[in-house]
Amino acid sequence: MTMADLSEANARLYESLLEGDHAALARVITKIENRTPGYRELLAALHAETGSASVVGVTGSPGTGKSTLVDSLTKQYREAGETVGVIAVDPSSPYTGGSVLGDRIRMGSTAGDMDVFVRSMSARGRLGGLSMATADAVKALDAFGKDRIIVETVGAGQNEVDIVETAETVAVVVQPGSGDDIQLLKAGILEIGDLFVVNKADKDETAGTVADLETMIHMDASPTAGLSTGHHGPSAAEPDPEDGDTGDDSGWTPPVIETVATTGEGVDDLRAALDDHQQYLVDSGEAAGRRRRQAETEIRRLLRTDLGELAEGVLDRRGGIEAVASQVARRETDPYTVVEELVDPLESAVEESLAAESEASEK
Amino acid sequence: MTMADLSEANARLYESLLEGDHAALARVITKIENRTPGYRELLAALHAETGSASVVGVTGSPGTGKSTLVDSLTKQYREAGETVGVIAVDPSSPYTGGSVLGDRIRMGSTAGDMDVFVRSMSARGRLGGLSMATADAVKALDAFGKDRIIVETVGAGQNEVDIVETAETVAVVVQPGSGDDIQLLKAGILEIGDLFVVNKADKDETAGTVADLETMIHMDASPTAGLSTGHHGPSAAEPDPEDGDTGDDSGWTPPVIETVATTGEGVDDLRAALDDHQQYLVDSGEAAGRRRRQAETEIRRLLRTDLGELAEGVLDRRGGIEAVASQVARRETDPYTVVEELVDPLESAVEESLAAESEASEK
Repeated sequence: MTMADLSEANARLYESLLEGDHAALARVITKIENRTPGYRELLAALHAETGSASVVGVTGSPGTGKSTLVDSLTKQYREAGETVGVIAVDPSSPYTGGSVLGDRIRMGSTAGDMDVFVRSMSARGRLGGLSMATADAVKALDAFGKDRIIVETVGAGQNEVDIVETAETVAVVVQPGSGDDIQLLKAGILEIGDLFVVNKADKDETAGTVADLETMIHMDASPTAGLSTGHHGPSAAEPDPEDGDTGDDSGWTPPVIETVATTGEGVDDLRAALDDHQQYLVDSGEAAGRRRRQAETEIRRLLRTDLGELAEGVLDRRGGIEAVASQVARRETDPYTVVEELVDPLESAVEESLAAESEASEK
Repeated sequence: MTMADLSEANARLYESLLEGDHAALARVITKIENRTPGYRELLAALHAETGSASVVGVTGSPGTGKSTLVDSLTKQYREAGETVGVIAVDPSSPYTGGSVLGDRIRMGSTAGDMDVFVRSMSARGRLGGLSMATADAVKALDAFGKDRIIVETVGAGQNEVDIVETAETVAVVVQPGSGDDIQLLKAGILEIGDLFVVNKADKDETAGTVADLETMIHMDASPTAGLSTGHHGPSAAEPDPEDGDTGDDSGWTPPVIETVATTGEGVDDLRAALDDHQQYLVDSGEAAGRRRRQAETEIRRLLRTDLGELAEGVLDRRGGIEAVASQVARRETDPYTVVEELVDPLESAVEESLAAESEASEK
């Protein structure tokens, strides 16, 4: 897809965005959130312009001071002359679109700086809609030319894991002495952290929390830890040069950084650690593997969405999901039979189309 | 689907399960977890035998004493002569299948009672796999003839919300003085609770936590609260007799129960409140609406899974997702174009098959 294929309105938006117009950027992200017709052709065209931004994910429980930390980090990037885009994702918020209040609350010390673009996004429908919208918004910021993109999300849970997979580097934020954070970390968040931040590190319990984290990181790096990940990467015994990033048997050990976001203390260490990890990804060749897997995730997500809509259309023609569900609830039929009857004709159609294709190519 | 359609092995399993053989029940749930070929025809046949069990969901943060509470509740049901099935869902646990250790730890005071069936389930793949497996396991317990089925899960997040939707009545457990719980409740869990339990109610902070919860429940029941739910139910102004349950404008106000699970204190109040809610569902006519929506969820989930597999098959014939993803990562193409090329032929096939069908029916 190139610019030539775009509608006139999309072509204008595309050009304005690439020229650095923040209003155009905001409009594109709104299109993404609303899935306005035509948003996909726009993203298809923008895709070729992406790949130069550094994308960092920041996740942690409510109350850990994530937003203040992101604000402080943004300030440092700005002082170094870099442009920053922040996507703050709050899946729990029922409010849609601009989240104006949220943005105002968040802007903190970088408010008014036009080279900081902050956007809150919230849940809109299910089925990975939010993680898809986040990945697309990151793409818009990347094509726009932001040097640094920060995706901030509330841990934990599968939604958050999906969302932070948009990032190349994931920082997990905890606060000192919160046993709950350790619980959350046990709940699958430990595995996604490329580095850990103990924020509010002026509290007494800091040393204990740092020690706990380091113990857990050490455990996760042990040989049996491969069992505990969903990664499909190679085992240590059989390295696969195509797929260098497996999280566990890599040469990267997540550091634990202490920060006090409110004063900015330790934030330079965090910045350095983020850069170290990004450099590591390049040097080790893992960056390519991560990018490929991100593309896989994106393709699968889009496919699922489109096929879901296709199925919904078929259901509608058969009287709608409500009518069918009522029959199931009355035990007149069962969900498995219903779905089999819907999918079997599709399967046949796919078989036929593939057979016709291979016949045509044989001629 | 009836028993006559089953394979011989499935027919034997089906009969043994309906005869009350716990080993057969365990085997069926293992089939469900592993998606062993043939598990769906078995569930399709069992579906007709379901609908008589009372299904309760219990959710809450780690450390709230959920498991002890479930154990204590189970004991009371057993003393009243009822049979109980417990599905303990731990999405964070990477360990698959039997979760033997987990079961042993949990069994507590009801260990050894053959009419209590406890099974732990954990994450296996993504895409709603766990919520589907949980709903299917509940079906097996229901067909088996368990009077009470308890689904226990760690809050919060969309996964947990999906899982507890299997239940007719959802109890949310918090512990006194834990600000985090209030945070979690704000994060969308408040909406799914039909009742709230403050466990460890011998702690000092109990009164404050109870008061906080009651304030939040009151806020949620206010007229504007409808905005904050994903429910598609009717507004108060336009009641839809077909769809009585909307959570917010219903006649049910979630009670807050105080318990001390370790001593059993207050657990009889919890039992009574659970029964009250189930009675309310029947009296108000909401039960039918909930069952229909559960069937809808199930149909959609199955459709998504099957269509996802179909898409995966198509991708494989085109060289596999990895090859395509590499092209996307290299910016030679983009995910939107890739997916469009995959879905367009399917869409045409569906159109053709529907057109042929309607032509045939017109003759």
